[in-house]
Amino acid sequence: MTENKEKTTIVLFSGELDKAIAAFIIANGAAAYDHDVTIFFTFWGLNALRKDEQAAVKKGFLENMFAKMMPRGANRLGLSKMNFGGMGPKMIKHVMKKHNALSLPELIELAQEQGVKLVGCTMTMDLLGLQKEELLDGIEYAGVAAYLGDATDAKVNLFI
Amino acid sequence: MTENKEKTTIVLFSGELDKAIAAFIIANGAAAYDHDVTIFFTFWGLNALRKDEQAAVKKGFLENMFAKMMPRGANRLGLSKMNFGGMGPKMIKHVMKKHNALSLPELIELAQEQGVKLVGCTMTMDLLGLQKEELLDGIEYAGVAAYLGDATDAKVNLFI
Amino acid sequence: MTENKEKTTIVLFSGELDKAIAAFIIANGAAAYDHDVTIFFTFWGLNALRKDEQAAVKKGFLENMFAKMMPRGANRLGLSKMNFGGMGPKMIKHVMKKHNALSLPELIELAQEQGVKLVGCTMTMDLLGLQKEELLDGIEYAGVAAYLGDATDAKVNLFI
Repeated sequence: MTENKEKTTIVLFSGELDKAIAAFIIANGAAAYDHDVTIFFTFWGLNALRKDEQAAVKKGFLENMFAKMMPRGANRLGLSKMNFGGMGPKMIKHVMKKHNALSLPELIELAQEQGVKLVGCTMTMDLLGLQKEELLDGIEYAGVAAYLGDATDAKVNLFI
Repeated sequence: MTENKEKTTIVLFSGELDKAIAAFIIANGAAAYDHDVTIFFTFWGLNALRKDEQAAVKKGFLENMFAKMMPRGANRLGLSKMNFGGMGPKMIKHVMKKHNALSLPELIELAQEQGVKLVGCTMTMDLLGLQKEELLDGIEYAGVAAYLGDATDAKVNLFI
Repeated sequence: MTENKEKTTIVLFSGELDKAIAAFIIANGAAAYDHDVTIFFTFWGLNALRKDEQAAVKKGFLENMFAKMMPRGANRLGLSKMNFGGMGPKMIKHVMKKHNALSLPELIELAQEQGVKLVGCTMTMDLLGLQKEELLDGIEYAGVAAYLGDATDAKVNLFI
């Protein structure tokens, strides 16, 4: 049934607000055009999926350090340019609101509503000590093999 | 008529000299092989298209701040690595000249001569307060839908 | 004979450990699925291919400066995030070892064993003054035309 649909995949490797916004705008656009869309979150990209509140999970020392040093969720990401210790993201969020552009949490919600498949990279989660309880609900979990399976069927494959 | 041509698209998201050079070298190479090539400039990538001189446009406070903080044009971009407060770009430009490699402004000119379609992302332009008068002549303007239309027909789609 | 194989290409532009690891995990995964895989190393990405030991090659002043300032080989790359003056890469290497994940030098070796084509971008090598003697054995050398030839035949093309 989905065989005839165009497919689009995005690897979101970067953990920055601006890159995550670009990824979700492209993903939501493609979904609106009725593509099957997968975003595969790996390395720092996983931070965009972290829940706002701290999950009650047990971690080792290094895993705890990673968890503390990395931004917890879409609202806390920095910018790849002009971050200025957090002023940059505030400015971007301000102008986005002013122009009625969706915020990153809203873009993520829209993606889930549109059926964009959000996949957490299990290998990176192991490495960084991130657990499913810490990530948003409705995420799928897989490794590079699943990503390649989707990408091989897709025409648009981006690494962001 | 262009239906049988190979198609290549590049999203230039990054505003750094080295990444912009890579984007234009690939784009010009593909155009030389008779591909239909589109570069879609979004976020910081738009800075590569800014005119060298300051355009006489009216802006709000935030838009003015963005305009001042972001590099004005291809000659003012920094490097993604080893920028060293501007020394890195000078070194790179020096060795490129020494090896008779085209500079970024020359690569942009060549792309326009070869018919590479340069498209400014209207959504980002709104957000950052960039106006058409501030960008090079001969640029097209469109949103993510137009990009996806091109990308779906293309075999090579890169996000830089 | 290789005509019916799926093809995957990666441009490795970035010189960071985390991005190089991501590139090689995808490349090795694709090779395991019997794709023809090419990684095209350009700009800072070439540093991942430098030999650990210093090669006895003659260089000009600028080329020497570049050679000294850029990390010499896969073991010396920094992280794109949370580098912390070298602590970040140590932490990542530590958790990778703990989880029995292959290190970057091992990933490169595996790629070569699996027949992944590793191609050094001759134009960047000229610019940065990198010579073949300084790079790992078994590397091929080509320009953007060869990359585009591979990419046009491939379904998955990433720029990392």
